[in-house]
Amino acid sequence: MRARLPIGVFDSGLGGLTVARQIRRLLPEEDILYLGDTARVPYGARSVRTIVRYSRNCARKLVERGVKMLVVACNTVSAVALDDLRAELDLPVLGVIEPGASAAVAASRTHRIGVLATAGTIASGAYPRAVASRSTRAEVVGRAAPLLVPLVEEGWVEGEVPTLAAERYVSPLAAHDVDVVVLGCTHYPVLRPTLEAVVARVLGAAARVVDSGEATATELAAFLAARAMQHPRTGSGVMGEMKMMVTDRPQSFAEVASRFLGHPVDEVELVDL
Amino acid sequence: MRARLPIGVFDSGLGGLTVARQIRRLLPEEDILYLGDTARVPYGARSVRTIVRYSRNCARKLVERGVKMLVVACNTVSAVALDDLRAELDLPVLGVIEPGASAAVAASRTHRIGVLATAGTIASGAYPRAVASRSTRAEVVGRAAPLLVPLVEEGWVEGEVPTLAAERYVSPLAAHDVDVVVLGCTHYPVLRPTLEAVVARVLGAAARVVDSGEATATELAAFLAARAMQHPRTGSGVMGEMKMMVTDRPQSFAEVASRFLGHPVDEVELVDL
Repeated sequence: MRARLPIGVFDSGLGGLTVARQIRRLLPEEDILYLGDTARVPYGARSVRTIVRYSRNCARKLVERGVKMLVVACNTVSAVALDDLRAELDLPVLGVIEPGASAAVAASRTHRIGVLATAGTIASGAYPRAVASRSTRAEVVGRAAPLLVPLVEEGWVEGEVPTLAAERYVSPLAAHDVDVVVLGCTHYPVLRPTLEAVVARVLGAAARVVDSGEATATELAAFLAARAMQHPRTGSGVMGEMKMMVTDRPQSFAEVASRFLGHPVDEVELVDL
Repeated sequence: MRARLPIGVFDSGLGGLTVARQIRRLLPEEDILYLGDTARVPYGARSVRTIVRYSRNCARKLVERGVKMLVVACNTVSAVALDDLRAELDLPVLGVIEPGASAAVAASRTHRIGVLATAGTIASGAYPRAVASRSTRAEVVGRAAPLLVPLVEEGWVEGEVPTLAAERYVSPLAAHDVDVVVLGCTHYPVLRPTLEAVVARVLGAAARVVDSGEATATELAAFLAARAMQHPRTGSGVMGEMKMMVTDRPQSFAEVASRFLGHPVDEVELVDL
């Protein structure tokens, strides 16, 4: 029975674990099968054609293993490859950008939405498009924030440097009357306390931070409920399993994944795509 | 005639351009053929086996095009793949680590050498090995500095944040009586003024910064002279050509390359490996 299958989640690396974590929080009884393409991370600097090809490899690996739907837990892939994946695959595919855009439109009073993301996601124009299809009034002010990913991977998420980096990226949004800042990269939620403090100081106490991953988990929960695709054990209190696969360096992935997820990670399988 | 062929230089991306720039400064009459594997950058987070495979692809492409020798302008590749390349290829192969280690040993009075590099280069132990083969007294204190590459790519090379990041990485070296800091990643020379200021303040005015790329260009010049492999036009004052190939996004490479090299870059060829 299809509902018993795990939810497939993939990312170019480990950032998608912040999305998996939100899914686990909202849907603890679901099984999750996570794939991080760590041999080819990061996708951000690659061409659209290359990203589409890599994403297809990831999606096929999860479909082969058996999943009931796919969550593309990577903004770069969601920005450029979602239509291709949906056209090719015979199962529901949910990206992180559309839920993030919906949550941002709902939260904004000024109709000016700031988006922090990698250079590739900003250049793709995916957030402005997704916002435009949800609101005729809302406008997006995008800002590439290339230092935030290495700050997260360095574990330097509090204090002067992350705060100054956050200010560098958030400050230009003030002139545009922005009152919602979307975390448009799945690494950024690890910096959320710092980013929220900077957003409140620079854009005002009423300004909000939207985590696209959290918005995606919320939309996923609604999607599964509406289609009766929830795991039969839902409501039983029995936790689902989370399995992880990577394409390179499983041991170092397990170590960092523990930090991202907040609990030890035992086994990470090495796979070829 | 072999001496007329260009010098082949490769890197996972554009960091190697700081090495190409030093070669051009010291050997302006040589032709340079540069290859940046931008489709698969960065190599730093990949396994040794993957790095060896990618490096072989790069080296073969340059050999196919015709080069008189190879400069591996990437610390990660120099750290893990140099022996394989030397065993396979029928031409001289020069990495950046051995020249950097020689220059550091020559410059140090305390016999304590600090190395800043990517996590992969530090983990490889290549600098301690190279230093140990040149001096029985010298010791290496290595420090991974993962924020420096994105700071360079962001163009944030002066001011508070690069200074704080540099202090974070240089300060622990003071307790070890280090008096020479090796820039063990080809991106770092772009931050050299900031790093030199921090090194002088934290380690004392007598402390020195060694740029592995500069040391490599010096060794290359001596190597070509000793083997009469200099281009016949040497001494004529006629500048050589610099040609560039990349595996992804030639246009954006040309833009950043102009910043790294300090002059406009016209044409970058897209190649498959």
